[in-house]
Amino acid sequence: MNPSPIRVTIWNENVHEQQEPSVAELYPKGLHGTLAERLAAPDLAIRTATLEQPEHGLTQDVLAETDVLLWWGHAAHDKVEDAVVERVRQRVWDGMGLLVMHSGHMSKIFRALNGTSGKLHWREVGELERVWCIDPAHPIASGVPEHFDIPYEEMYGEPFMIAGDAHVIFMSWFEGGEVFRSGFTLQRGFGRMFYFRPGHEAFPTFYHEEVLKVLANGIRWLKPTVDRPYPKTNVPVSLEPIAPKDFAFCKVGIVKG
Amino acid sequence: MNPSPIRVTIWNENVHEQQEPSVAELYPKGLHGTLAERLAAPDLAIRTATLEQPEHGLTQDVLAETDVLLWWGHAAHDKVEDAVVERVRQRVWDGMGLLVMHSGHMSKIFRALNGTSGKLHWREVGELERVWCIDPAHPIASGVPEHFDIPYEEMYGEPFMIAGDAHVIFMSWFEGGEVFRSGFTLQRGFGRMFYFRPGHEAFPTFYHEEVLKVLANGIRWLKPTVDRPYPKTNVPVSLEPIAPKDFAFCKVGIVKG
Amino acid sequence: MNPSPIRVTIWNENVHEQQEPSVAELYPKGLHGTLAERLAAPDLAIRTATLEQPEHGLTQDVLAETDVLLWWGHAAHDKVEDAVVERVRQRVWDGMGLLVMHSGHMSKIFRALNGTSGKLHWREVGELERVWCIDPAHPIASGVPEHFDIPYEEMYGEPFMIAGDAHVIFMSWFEGGEVFRSGFTLQRGFGRMFYFRPGHEAFPTFYHEEVLKVLANGIRWLKPTVDRPYPKTNVPVSLEPIAPKDFAFCKVGIVKG
Amino acid sequence: MNPSPIRVTIWNENVHEQQEPSVAELYPKGLHGTLAERLAAPDLAIRTATLEQPEHGLTQDVLAETDVLLWWGHAAHDKVEDAVVERVRQRVWDGMGLLVMHSGHMSKIFRALNGTSGKLHWREVGELERVWCIDPAHPIASGVPEHFDIPYEEMYGEPFMIAGDAHVIFMSWFEGGEVFRSGFTLQRGFGRMFYFRPGHEAFPTFYHEEVLKVLANGIRWLKPTVDRPYPKTNVPVSLEPIAPKDFAFCKVGIVKG
Repeated sequence: MNPSPIRVTIWNENVHEQQEPSVAELYPKGLHGTLAERLAAPDLAIRTATLEQPEHGLTQDVLAETDVLLWWGHAAHDKVEDAVVERVRQRVWDGMGLLVMHSGHMSKIFRALNGTSGKLHWREVGELERVWCIDPAHPIASGVPEHFDIPYEEMYGEPFMIAGDAHVIFMSWFEGGEVFRSGFTLQRGFGRMFYFRPGHEAFPTFYHEEVLKVLANGIRWLKPTVDRPYPKTNVPVSLEPIAPKDFAFCKVGIVKG
Repeated sequence: MNPSPIRVTIWNENVHEQQEPSVAELYPKGLHGTLAERLAAPDLAIRTATLEQPEHGLTQDVLAETDVLLWWGHAAHDKVEDAVVERVRQRVWDGMGLLVMHSGHMSKIFRALNGTSGKLHWREVGELERVWCIDPAHPIASGVPEHFDIPYEEMYGEPFMIAGDAHVIFMSWFEGGEVFRSGFTLQRGFGRMFYFRPGHEAFPTFYHEEVLKVLANGIRWLKPTVDRPYPKTNVPVSLEPIAPKDFAFCKVGIVKG
Repeated sequence: MNPSPIRVTIWNENVHEQQEPSVAELYPKGLHGTLAERLAAPDLAIRTATLEQPEHGLTQDVLAETDVLLWWGHAAHDKVEDAVVERVRQRVWDGMGLLVMHSGHMSKIFRALNGTSGKLHWREVGELERVWCIDPAHPIASGVPEHFDIPYEEMYGEPFMIAGDAHVIFMSWFEGGEVFRSGFTLQRGFGRMFYFRPGHEAFPTFYHEEVLKVLANGIRWLKPTVDRPYPKTNVPVSLEPIAPKDFAFCKVGIVKG
Repeated sequence: MNPSPIRVTIWNENVHEQQEPSVAELYPKGLHGTLAERLAAPDLAIRTATLEQPEHGLTQDVLAETDVLLWWGHAAHDKVEDAVVERVRQRVWDGMGLLVMHSGHMSKIFRALNGTSGKLHWREVGELERVWCIDPAHPIASGVPEHFDIPYEEMYGEPFMIAGDAHVIFMSWFEGGEVFRSGFTLQRGFGRMFYFRPGHEAFPTFYHEEVLKVLANGIRWLKPTVDRPYPKTNVPVSLEPIAPKDFAFCKVGIVKG
């Protein structure tokens, strides 16, 4: 008997596709549509959601049925309602996996989970990005070559404002002279997170074989691992006996002393 | 010539002191008042701020003149305006130090910077807490003994939902049978953060010599270290030449492929 | 078709069992024999090795056929030959999992992989150890309760000299008043490592259900994940062209300047 | 009154200088001599030591009087006696700072403290290295620009086998297409460590202003911070009472069960 498939929701703000013909030409079904198509596999049950839907398509029910959430946003970070961000944050803390792509580094959810600004340097001239794998032993690097090239990408450069426990798997070299930590994992609460840099809307990055391989590996690795909720936080009865104490005396004595 | 003093702002929600006579008796000037008094030193310029003040006393000007912010909150976390939390978060990213005490583990700012829920187990029976120093080489542990006892404290127990890059300096043993990571540092952006567990309002913890020593060390360690702002994020001109590329061909070719 | 079993080698110095009748009575087949028996499972191919064997039973061939190595040592750390330690270290770097138990914290291999002294505080009076799980989302914690008690154990107390990237899964509370990071993982090179504290030879700890559960989980998690060796280190030909440079001028010019 | 100066020992294997005329021409007093000259400052008391001296110049007395040790080695790592490496390792654990440069990544001491192989990719054609500062808030980055170029250096490329708690301050971009984590700190025991990549013996890197600035900052940051030795490890008397236990029954009961 096969295990039940991983329930994946691909979220995309879907703004550039509607405003820029060149993007629409590259991704006629939207970035989310292309990703859903290219990542399709028997062990995945994929659905998509976009900004324009009610509650951005991320209702309590949808999230409750999502094991791994992919996130692509750029032009409309501030249009994402705080209540939805809080809902996603809570689901990650409870165990849901989250894969943030490219310009999602400035999304509310990325910043909320890193605890950082997400700032970086950037330049959009369409330059060569070479992605180096620096932890070949990580499951997300499985089957990924030592390095691979993406011929036309936006540049992201250091310093990248991310959390100190980012476990870096990929680092990028850019034709124009910069370097970047372009793929890293985090744990927040009971959930895992993976950030992967490539994926500019103006370039065909989401048709790139190695990029898709990394995303595919990422989804499998992000599958929830926890088997319980966080337990009741108040534990009024102690496991060990508490010696009686004279509080009144203590307080007055120390305050006056 | 002496260096200019570290500008410290002690923030306290100041709610228990007004609602519970026993707390008012213990801390007649408020927790913030007691801390300001007990932490006073020639190298510190200390002021206080409380929830009830306009903008909670944390205006842009006050924060701009604050090197290290201390934070005590408990009953009114949700009364703290999001705009003020955002302002503090930004200041930490720019280099300000932040020292969160005790029940501040559920404050908006603690959760925003850890990226976690801040959840823990707790019990309020007034039990012995023994604080162990697990990194005696850290400047915050300077002059602090291997372990010290606080005779009456609230219990906080694991699992404590904090970021993975928490550098743990203190761990607590509780009479009732629990353990806790009770003192840790984080870096977020250009700013440092220190969390210290002891400090329940119903007990005279802020008169405890070793607790005050740890807080005093913490303030000195949290002094900003950065000598510059984050630079301009867009760098349109590359340091190295970019080879010309035929985008049109690339896009169509790959999409059709 | 089932995947091939994980090849496990349980290494034990096997000294106390031969010198102390009470230990021999508790573990008549040696700690390694009891562990092999109690950890037996269809997905594991377990063998044992001991100090007294040629090359301590850890020949190049044995290690080459070992996916996960368990290590128990105490009285004879200095009897372990450096060449064998080096061989184990190299295998971990290449991807083998290593599970170090209890007093193995002072073994040469534990210190070599942590880069630390492994020092801690200890007391042997047979006291209650309560093990708290602080990362319930980790696969090694799967099915392990929030906390469990071991009625008679040796005490290990902080500060425990381990590497800063120790990912702590378990923390212990001791009846006598100490705390300890009693279970943590590390990655070194391409291999994973797990340290688990309980397991004093004078107590029946290795018959304890929860302890066995943690060890069983640990073995599965330590299974090698890497799919390649470290590549050739010298890469004389660059991927990008190198501009010609006038070294002679450079050297002299700068030296004189 | 000024604080006493930081006692610095610069260790150099001093082999290339004696075997290769071009290196001797660049560094007529040896790499150690040049570094001692260029790093000289009123708050530093600098001495040097080399491989050919008795005990490599690192006697117990010399190390006891060293606050910060700089290490340059390449051609003769295996000539360094294990006893001296052990002595240095112990001193770092006790609080001494250690600054390892360039090819020291394969030295016994670097590998012993990281717990890793130190492997990396390399190419020696004299190419441009651009060093990016990714943590401008770190004291070692104080006064160092956002990035600086070294016109002729050996290339070191990822994956670099170092410990997971490496706090990366600098990352390098290489003309030939590689990236590298070229400056990072570690804590091992009570001591701090800093690794800095640039410094190939065939190039005038140690006359480079920014390189010298980083090394100078590193030395100040590596100054020992601990105010005590590790305490006695055996603590036979507990702080809390231990309930009496019937060991005989326990052992037999569980073994038979």
